[in-house]
Amino acid sequence: MTPEDQLIGRITGALRSAASGAKLRPGIGDDAAVVPPSGKADWVLSSDASLEGVHFLADTHPADSVGYKALARATSDLAAMGATPRFFLLTLALPLSRTGAWLDRFLKGLRSAAQRFGMTLIGGDTTRSRRIFISITVVGRVAPGRAITRSGARPGDRIYVSGTLGAAQLGLWMIKRASGGRSRLTAHLYPRIRIELGAWLAREGVASAMIDISDGLSTDLGRLCRASGVGARIRADRIPCVQIPAGGRRPSALDPLKLALDGGEDYELLFTVPPRKEKRLRQAPGFRDLTQIGEIVRTKEVTLVDKTDKRLVPGGWDPFGSA
Amino acid sequence: MTPEDQLIGRITGALRSAASGAKLRPGIGDDAAVVPPSGKADWVLSSDASLEGVHFLADTHPADSVGYKALARATSDLAAMGATPRFFLLTLALPLSRTGAWLDRFLKGLRSAAQRFGMTLIGGDTTRSRRIFISITVVGRVAPGRAITRSGARPGDRIYVSGTLGAAQLGLWMIKRASGGRSRLTAHLYPRIRIELGAWLAREGVASAMIDISDGLSTDLGRLCRASGVGARIRADRIPCVQIPAGGRRPSALDPLKLALDGGEDYELLFTVPPRKEKRLRQAPGFRDLTQIGEIVRTKEVTLVDKTDKRLVPGGWDPFGSA
Repeated sequence: MTPEDQLIGRITGALRSAASGAKLRPGIGDDAAVVPPSGKADWVLSSDASLEGVHFLADTHPADSVGYKALARATSDLAAMGATPRFFLLTLALPLSRTGAWLDRFLKGLRSAAQRFGMTLIGGDTTRSRRIFISITVVGRVAPGRAITRSGARPGDRIYVSGTLGAAQLGLWMIKRASGGRSRLTAHLYPRIRIELGAWLAREGVASAMIDISDGLSTDLGRLCRASGVGARIRADRIPCVQIPAGGRRPSALDPLKLALDGGEDYELLFTVPPRKEKRLRQAPGFRDLTQIGEIVRTKEVTLVDKTDKRLVPGGWDPFGSA
Repeated sequence: MTPEDQLIGRITGALRSAASGAKLRPGIGDDAAVVPPSGKADWVLSSDASLEGVHFLADTHPADSVGYKALARATSDLAAMGATPRFFLLTLALPLSRTGAWLDRFLKGLRSAAQRFGMTLIGGDTTRSRRIFISITVVGRVAPGRAITRSGARPGDRIYVSGTLGAAQLGLWMIKRASGGRSRLTAHLYPRIRIELGAWLAREGVASAMIDISDGLSTDLGRLCRASGVGARIRADRIPCVQIPAGGRRPSALDPLKLALDGGEDYELLFTVPPRKEKRLRQAPGFRDLTQIGEIVRTKEVTLVDKTDKRLVPGGWDPFGSA
């Protein structure tokens, strides 16, 4: 057995799951995975990369969080389509120095995410590299024609977000300064993914458009509006901002509204609901966690309504941005 | 529009294909791609990474070859299952310095491969990195239960390979020394993928096991035998070795048999055929390109039959090997 085959064996062993089912033939140890037809359901596929120095810092972020989050980030894209996650493929490029204890902890976090999201590893690739590079492809399913895209928002639709925004970015700030307890860091290290909510919205046909907030509300709302050919007005005082812990230093970078607008990595869902369907939203899982922050308008501009009614400039995270 | 969104727009524009069909909803510009059910066919999925400095040298290999080969390598895994390629997702991490002319040429090569293999880009991810990193997930389909795995070889089955082995490695040797014309380098830069042959073998149920030769015959035959719980005897004089051009220096590294056994990157198919089905093989597309090199045996050892009958040690390419 070659060293590469041994490494693949370790990965497979750590992620072996009872959930794989009898009919599924994983591609690990074969050239490719074979997935039986899903009946009449549509398949939903997405890929997401996590790169050392860009998406995480190998000496700051615990390895199990890197594994958990790599799968969570990709899976959030399925949730944002209303799909139920099923499988994933893992491409892993590692320096030799990370193939020991670091890899074990990484796989532990990945396994914990896979179990929580109900997913089975069916294939992937491993190779050597100077820096850690992870690419994950996720596969989910959704009832035919029920997937929720970014492009269905219409003027008058109400804009909703789940959860609290800015918590992940606050966690990143705290972990870089080694301040704050572990419990405060959960949103940054082990983000919750809104699988149930997304699937409910698709099944019930309640949302007209949806996106997950991965790069920041200001950036992702802009994307949803552009895809739908509409604009939006959101109210600053409605945005569910993270609470900044009292005491200690609190530099201006820690403005709660700015964290919520531009923070990114919250993996909450941002979706639009036609007024006539708004009542049904009360049945949604986690309804009390939802906030209406504004509405879709005809003019193609995204406005933040506060004392000055200013145009909202995308200020979220961009790997190719100049920031 | 953010810089990342602009980059995604360029990638999508370069790879836009008429083949995408009306029902397919690509994930580019949305969170994920939606793929309608494939009737009763099984889906086949695989991921493959191409990393600067490991799989290619950015200043030696033409950018269009890097793009072509990244998709070819992944697609060869579908061919090795007997699947017909359909879709792919592209994860691309690039330094800013490669987002100009290099990216354009890379996309040109990728597009040429996608057209040749009949594939449509349906999603992916882009990010910034110090070195070029490409991860591609390919999706194909095969009639239910017809996929050919590595594990079905039985004692007495005949072992076949397609094409000529060692040509890609010879091409790599030549390109590193800037010797040899472009036509000689084709096997290394723009390898042919045996999609038709693989699909025929699956459809007709002729092969009992199959793998593509990506890391070298010695390594990949070992994998097929291990997965099948068998051994093999192959004859050195039967192996279709690349011809080394006459004249010039010809160091011992350029032993044709060694190139064929350990060279890798040939992307030819290695498969086993039960004796009773051997006659039907004559109908295979490109039958004249196939060579029987030995047979499967009960004892779990892979032997190279020559003057000394030595045990065949996996000598192919391994990113985690000590070589």
